Amino acid sequence: MLSDPRRPVHTADPRTGEPGVQVAVESGPEQVDQMVRAAAATAPALADRTVRAALLRAAADRLAGAAAEVIAAADAETALGVPRLTGELARTTYQLRAFAEQVEHGGFLDVAIDHADPALGRPDLRRMKVPLGVVAVFAASNFPLAFSVPGGDTASALAAGCPVVVKAHPDHPATSELCARLIREAAVGLGLPAELLGLLHGFEAGPELVRHPLVAAVGFTGSVRGGRALHDVAAARPRPIPFHGELGSLNPVVVTERAAATRAAEIGGGLAASFTLGTGQFCVKPGLVLIPAGAAELEQELVAAAAKTDGGPLLDPRMREAFLTGVQHRAAQPGVQTLLAAGQADAAPLAVAPGVLAVAAADLTEELLEECFGPVTVLVRYADAAELEAVLGRLSGNLTATVQLAADERGPEAAALLDRLRPLAGRLVVDNWPTGVAVAPAMHHGGPYPASTSTSTSVGATAVERWLRPVSYQNTPQELLPPELRDANPLGVPQRVNA
Amino acid sequence: MLSDPRRPVHTADPRTGEPGVQVAVESGPEQVDQMVRAAAATAPALADRTVRAALLRAAADRLAGAAAEVIAAADAETALGVPRLTGELARTTYQLRAFAEQVEHGGFLDVAIDHADPALGRPDLRRMKVPLGVVAVFAASNFPLAFSVPGGDTASALAAGCPVVVKAHPDHPATSELCARLIREAAVGLGLPAELLGLLHGFEAGPELVRHPLVAAVGFTGSVRGGRALHDVAAARPRPIPFHGELGSLNPVVVTERAAATRAAEIGGGLAASFTLGTGQFCVKPGLVLIPAGAAELEQELVAAAAKTDGGPLLDPRMREAFLTGVQHRAAQPGVQTLLAAGQADAAPLAVAPGVLAVAAADLTEELLEECFGPVTVLVRYADAAELEAVLGRLSGNLTATVQLAADERGPEAAALLDRLRPLAGRLVVDNWPTGVAVAPAMHHGGPYPASTSTSTSVGATAVERWLRPVSYQNTPQELLPPELRDANPLGVPQRVNA
Repeated sequence: MLSDPRRPVHTADPRTGEPGVQVAVESGPEQVDQMVRAAAATAPALADRTVRAALLRAAADRLAGAAAEVIAAADAETALGVPRLTGELARTTYQLRAFAEQVEHGGFLDVAIDHADPALGRPDLRRMKVPLGVVAVFAASNFPLAFSVPGGDTASALAAGCPVVVKAHPDHPATSELCARLIREAAVGLGLPAELLGLLHGFEAGPELVRHPLVAAVGFTGSVRGGRALHDVAAARPRPIPFHGELGSLNPVVVTERAAATRAAEIGGGLAASFTLGTGQFCVKPGLVLIPAGAAELEQELVAAAAKTDGGPLLDPRMREAFLTGVQHRAAQPGVQTLLAAGQADAAPLAVAPGVLAVAAADLTEELLEECFGPVTVLVRYADAAELEAVLGRLSGNLTATVQLAADERGPEAAALLDRLRPLAGRLVVDNWPTGVAVAPAMHHGGPYPASTSTSTSVGATAVERWLRPVSYQNTPQELLPPELRDANPLGVPQRVNA
Repeated sequence: MLSDPRRPVHTADPRTGEPGVQVAVESGPEQVDQMVRAAAATAPALADRTVRAALLRAAADRLAGAAAEVIAAADAETALGVPRLTGELARTTYQLRAFAEQVEHGGFLDVAIDHADPALGRPDLRRMKVPLGVVAVFAASNFPLAFSVPGGDTASALAAGCPVVVKAHPDHPATSELCARLIREAAVGLGLPAELLGLLHGFEAGPELVRHPLVAAVGFTGSVRGGRALHDVAAARPRPIPFHGELGSLNPVVVTERAAATRAAEIGGGLAASFTLGTGQFCVKPGLVLIPAGAAELEQELVAAAAKTDGGPLLDPRMREAFLTGVQHRAAQPGVQTLLAAGQADAAPLAVAPGVLAVAAADLTEELLEECFGPVTVLVRYADAAELEAVLGRLSGNLTATVQLAADERGPEAAALLDRLRPLAGRLVVDNWPTGVAVAPAMHHGGPYPASTSTSTSVGATAVERWLRPVSYQNTPQELLPPELRDANPLGVPQRVNA
């Protein structure tokens, strides 16, 4: 594998499996080194917040201006469809503009000023946050825009003042190249160096990038296996660096007995829509659903609704294979019932139809507790509170945990259920579904390991905190302070003075 | 070493090297497990912020009430002296009370509320921070109170709502036991379980503690070797956990040519006081001082002032040995001049006197760039800006970096020097000295690796952030929300609504 670092990188059609045109070559160690060094050299150009805000807006403008081309490229490589990708592009440009506003506001600098207090023997102290340095971004397969080259990791890192080098996901190299070109054109249009955004291809470039001495932090969205390997590389460096990885999540749902009895159609329909959304390729897909034993109506409503969905191609033929094998393997576990068989769908040669499995809580194997990427969900029938608790006690960390309650379940028992789920997830969802991750200040997209390798979020305003570190200035004359820390506050940033 | 996990733990007199009484036994794997489990079980008792604030204040009261006993115990084990330990205890109780205020205020919960926006298809989202779980604290040798059992890591973790298990530093086991008892008495006095603070002894207990599945995060203050080993244990766990370690720092000082010419006596005297403070056993001791070549007056003033200081015993005979060997080894490097010879001091049988070494920038070896714990500093004489830059380019991360300027050096050159030092440190000090770490909102005590293994601080209000993670609630009825997230805001915490 390592003998030729300059192998060609091709697109491929996930609807047919046919290879497409060559769009790049894989990056060897020299290319990684050159790109990281070039990116690092652009850091001074990103020092000014006004410039960063302009860059983020110009990038959004370029992406929006090339919407037809971007969406067509992404659809050809991911088969996610024009409507979904139109929405994803809108989310992506919204996110870039939201970070631009945040950069201008300056609250994320977390400026604190404590004047000297001779009585306490305390010198003048002033703290603000500064960029960490080059950020390595590992793009996800399932969001070719919002969690890829122009996505939240890139946007938040640029907002923080950090140059970015993206390792492209091999499922959408052409989309990655196109988006990188648009962002670089936005930079050059503002007189900024194009090298503030680097783009690498090829599996070997990943660990090479994480090991590079000038890389200061990593953002990753992907699998537990790949993410953990890169996490370990980051931790083993002579100088370890922060690794913010989103690795995997089952996104458990708990349906109470009374909810199943009173809201069967609503819950069945909502769950079907949620686990099949984006052909089940969301990191927040509800993959494990704890339902009361004997909730026949709920099961029927779910299966009927899921059977009506179209299915579609997965992101690549390898994932399709893993999905079909994974469902087959799970269906063959002792005690597992196939309520709806996943398999070939009509939409395209490589399309799949969704599946629903069910098992008694007592029969739940470890294999069924592993995430299965694609449109399948596992119903776990619990007989009583003890069985429910036994299953919850076996769960790892998740991005989300959802409860479905009856309309009148608003008392201590429901509160206790939410409290029980809180250690298991970064977002708790009530009578709603986890798919759909709003870009909002109150969003947290992360969770206990393996949902995330850190306590931070990769979506929402606070995502920028991942790429910053605080610096205090002690006894520094006004003229030598950064403007953000001066008494006159010429840039008008929020300052907490003698808090 | 592992054959008998219950070896006795003795005090020792650092002034004479004589062993004292037995105060505890070392903790084996079973003790570690029991203590962590017992601590974890107390988490619900810490859920209420009012209770936590009361606990922190009661702990401060107990420590202050037993001041004479605490200071005597600490002095007997560390030889730091009554005046310094009186100050350290005051700082420790101040810190506990400051965190109590912070807990009551609730701003650290970082509450954000975004109401549902049907137009954007966005559900109601509300985020706050919640405690991580049991925090493991590794106490430092050089601050038996402020960075040990009742210190900043413990105080900030309890403030966050996390039970704590401390691994005692072997240099002050009796002080550790006494302080743990006082904090536990404070807890019990409030009707809280004593097990919210655990205390372990013995080297093997360290990695055992970091590996424990119920430990959720680690705070460490100590050496690069020990800290890196535990960092690696934390990263290699099946579920990796945050490791906030302060490992080591040279704390470089840069004296400009005009500063040396105009402020020789002030800088020489200030530096002598700073590097000998606490017998040179501060993590922020200025250990490497870049001075212009030919600054004879500055060197003379420094040596004269340092020679007048008393010296004293180090924290233990092993550190004394390491200090004397370390100075000898550095003095024997080619081109190194001994301006003031470190060695035996009059104060006590095991007391040491401070030393000053000097070397031309061109002769600076890697050995001279390693921290040497104790009262010694290395002057590096630079001939010009290029030599200065060459030395700065070789430095690792630091807690602090200091510049000494002339009174009229307030222009772009001085600003550029500060900018050059910023990537090297977490606190920049101008015409002042790094020793003395104020407990203040604008303080940052941390820095690029190895100064710190994370981007967080171990001193000041934001230290609490290390032990928290965000959780979002989506579409959750008011009755089921934590009170901090309700519209009525019954606890009166700061809420950012639709920011």
